Amino acid sequence: MLDIPSKPWGALDLISADDHIIEPAHVWTSRATGAMKAKAPHVVPAPDGTESWQIENRVFPNIGLNAQAGKKFEEYSAKAQKFSDMRPGCYDPKERVKDMDLDGVRTQVSFPSVPGIGGEKLMQIEDPELRAFAFQAYNDWLLEEYQGPHKGRLIGLGVLPMNEPEMAVAELRRIAKRGIKSLSIPAWLGEVPGCKPLVHSQYDPVWSLCEEYDLSINLHIAGGRTQQANFLKDPLPGQAEVFLTESSLTNFTILAWLVWGGMLARHPKLKCVSSEGGIGWVPYFLERADHAFNRHRFWMKAQIKEAPSTYFHRQCYVAFIQDYAGIFARSLIGVENILWESDYPHTDTTWPFSHKAVDTSLKGVPEDERRKITYENARKLYHLD
Amino acid sequence: MLDIPSKPWGALDLISADDHIIEPAHVWTSRATGAMKAKAPHVVPAPDGTESWQIENRVFPNIGLNAQAGKKFEEYSAKAQKFSDMRPGCYDPKERVKDMDLDGVRTQVSFPSVPGIGGEKLMQIEDPELRAFAFQAYNDWLLEEYQGPHKGRLIGLGVLPMNEPEMAVAELRRIAKRGIKSLSIPAWLGEVPGCKPLVHSQYDPVWSLCEEYDLSINLHIAGGRTQQANFLKDPLPGQAEVFLTESSLTNFTILAWLVWGGMLARHPKLKCVSSEGGIGWVPYFLERADHAFNRHRFWMKAQIKEAPSTYFHRQCYVAFIQDYAGIFARSLIGVENILWESDYPHTDTTWPFSHKAVDTSLKGVPEDERRKITYENARKLYHLD
Repeated sequence: MLDIPSKPWGALDLISADDHIIEPAHVWTSRATGAMKAKAPHVVPAPDGTESWQIENRVFPNIGLNAQAGKKFEEYSAKAQKFSDMRPGCYDPKERVKDMDLDGVRTQVSFPSVPGIGGEKLMQIEDPELRAFAFQAYNDWLLEEYQGPHKGRLIGLGVLPMNEPEMAVAELRRIAKRGIKSLSIPAWLGEVPGCKPLVHSQYDPVWSLCEEYDLSINLHIAGGRTQQANFLKDPLPGQAEVFLTESSLTNFTILAWLVWGGMLARHPKLKCVSSEGGIGWVPYFLERADHAFNRHRFWMKAQIKEAPSTYFHRQCYVAFIQDYAGIFARSLIGVENILWESDYPHTDTTWPFSHKAVDTSLKGVPEDERRKITYENARKLYHLD
Repeated sequence: MLDIPSKPWGALDLISADDHIIEPAHVWTSRATGAMKAKAPHVVPAPDGTESWQIENRVFPNIGLNAQAGKKFEEYSAKAQKFSDMRPGCYDPKERVKDMDLDGVRTQVSFPSVPGIGGEKLMQIEDPELRAFAFQAYNDWLLEEYQGPHKGRLIGLGVLPMNEPEMAVAELRRIAKRGIKSLSIPAWLGEVPGCKPLVHSQYDPVWSLCEEYDLSINLHIAGGRTQQANFLKDPLPGQAEVFLTESSLTNFTILAWLVWGGMLARHPKLKCVSSEGGIGWVPYFLERADHAFNRHRFWMKAQIKEAPSTYFHRQCYVAFIQDYAGIFARSLIGVENILWESDYPHTDTTWPFSHKAVDTSLKGVPEDERRKITYENARKLYHLD
C-alpha cells in the first residue's frame, strides 16, 4: 500500500470533473417497497469469495481496477474484489469526503459504476417497472445520500433511460427539479441495445430540456461501448497496453460527431464534457476539423454553417488527469474549455497526491489560467457556489 | 480550376515523404509475356464513360478524390474519372517532375494506388503466377520508368506479397538489390485476407531483411483497412466529415502496436514512417504511452523493457501536410522524427503552393529545425544524396 499522508497537502481548492462512485450495497434495496423488494439490484456472494451485483438475471463482478486508490502501482490488479478490500472512500460518501480533504480536492463530480458509466446497464433491464425503479432509485440515492448531505463537495451525475426517450425526458425533468446538477450519458450510445447514436435527432427533446435547465452532459471515454474495434480475435502480446494507450481517443471521435452531426448547432446552449479523454490531442482535433470544413465541406455537403472550433469553444469542455502536452498547447485548446480531474478511485487517480500532479502538469502556467483550469471553469459549469 | 503559377515558387528544396502515384495503363501489360499477356491487370471502359482497372475478375474505378491536384476546393468530387480528366502529372512521371519544379519540391516519395496503398489488392490475386508477376512488374516499373529515369526526384515505394512471407522475403531481396529505397506495407495488415497483424512474429524475417538493407517501411493511414469501425449501418448526416477528421488517428493505434507489440524492440534498426497521419497528436501519444508504461506495466505484464518514447525516438518518423499544432509542440515530438509531405495529387495536397503551406505551418521555426523537417530528415531516411 501507498504511504498515505496524514495531513492535507495544499489548499482545498481543486475541483475534479471526473471521479467514480463504487455504489454501496443498499442503493436499490433500501428504496424498494412491495414487489420491488425481491427484484431490486443487490449484492450476492461470488464463487471466488468476492461479491457481485445481480441486476435481474445478470451478474457483474466488482471490477478490481475500479477501486485501486491507495495501492502502489505494483499492487494494481484487475481481479474482482470485495467491499472490504477497498478503501471505504470508494463506497462511503462520508469517508470519500475525508479522502478529498487529505488530497486538497474541494469537489468531485462522479460517474456511476453499477448502473454502467452512463446508465447503460440499467437500460438493459427487461422488466419495465424494475427499469423505471432502478433509474429513479439511483438518482434519488445520489440526491439524498451522496450529494445532498455533502453540498459543494460531492456531485453525482444523474442517469436517464435513453432507450425510452419519453421516459428520459420525464426523469430528467424530475431530477432537475430535485437538484441534479449534471448528467452522464453513454458517449457510444449507438452501441447500447435499443438506442441510437448520441447525435440522432430522436434525442433532441432531451438536449432541449438540458438547455432549459442548464444541465451539462458528461461523456466518459468508451462509455457504452460494446464493440472494441481493435481487439483481435487472436490476441497478440501488447493488446491491453495498446487499448490503455488509445482508449482516450474514443472521445476524439465523439467530439467529431457532436460537431459534424449538428447536435451542437441544433442545441447552442448545451454544454458537453469529454471525460477522461485527456487534452493533448485536442489542438490537432480542432485544426483537422477546421481544415476539413474549410477545404472539404463542398464535396462532403457538410450541414454545419460554422467552423467546428466555433462550436467547440462555445459548448465543449475537455478534462485531463495528467497531461503536460495539452497544457503546453493550451492556447490552441482554449483555457476556458479545460477541466482537471482526479479519477478517484480508478488506477489513473492522482489521489492522494493531486496537488503534486497538478503542479507537474501545470508547471509555468500563470496563476489566472491555473485557477480557470483547476476550479473556475468547473465551478461555473456545475453551478457550484 | 486553380490559377496555376507559371514560375516556380521558392527554392527546389522540399522533400515530400508522402505522395501518390496514379499508375498509367501500361504498367503491367507492357511487361507481360506469353500467357500473362491476357491476364495482366489492365484498364477497361467503365459503364459511366470513365475507365476502370481490371485485376483478375475484380474491377476498380479510378477514384476521383485520388487525383484532384489543380482543382479548386469547390470542384473536388468523389466521382470516378478518366485519365484525360486528370493533370498528366498524376500518371506521367515526366509531367510529375515538371509539376514538382513548379512547386519547389525536389523529391516525392510515392505510394501505389492500383496495387492498393500497401499492395493489398495484388495480394488478393488468386492465381499464384499472376500474383507473383503483378508484384514484380509493379516494382520493376517503379525502378525502370518511375524512379530510375528521375534520380533523386521520384522515389517509388516497393510492395511485397505479405500474404506469403517467404515470397515477400525473396521479392524484398530482389528489389533491394535493384535499388528500391523504401517500402509500403499495409498499416492494417491484419485486416488483409490471408495476413496477420503487422507486429505478428511471422513477419520478423521481412523486418530483419529491412534492417540488413536499411530500408524503411511506410505505413499510410487506413492502409489495408477493410473494417471502418465507426461507419454506421444506418448513416447519419456528418459521417463522411467524421471519417475525414479522425482517419489520421488510425496511425495512433498503429504506432501503439509497433511499440507495445515489441516489433521495434525486436528490430532495433528498423525505421517506420507514419504517413499522412499528421503530427499534432504525437505529443499526447508519447506522454500517454510512457504513462501507461510507468504506471500500468506491472498488472499488464508488459513485455517491452524501455519506455515507449525511447523506441519512437530511435525508430519512428511522423509525416504531416499542414499541422500547426504539431509544429507548435515539436519539442515534445522530436525535430529529428518529423517529415513533411505534399500528398500530391490527393485532395489534401499543398500543390502548387507547397512553400506557402510550409511557411504557414513552420512560422517562427528556426532555420536549422526547418531544414531538418522539410528535407534533412527525409534525405537521410530515404538515402538521397
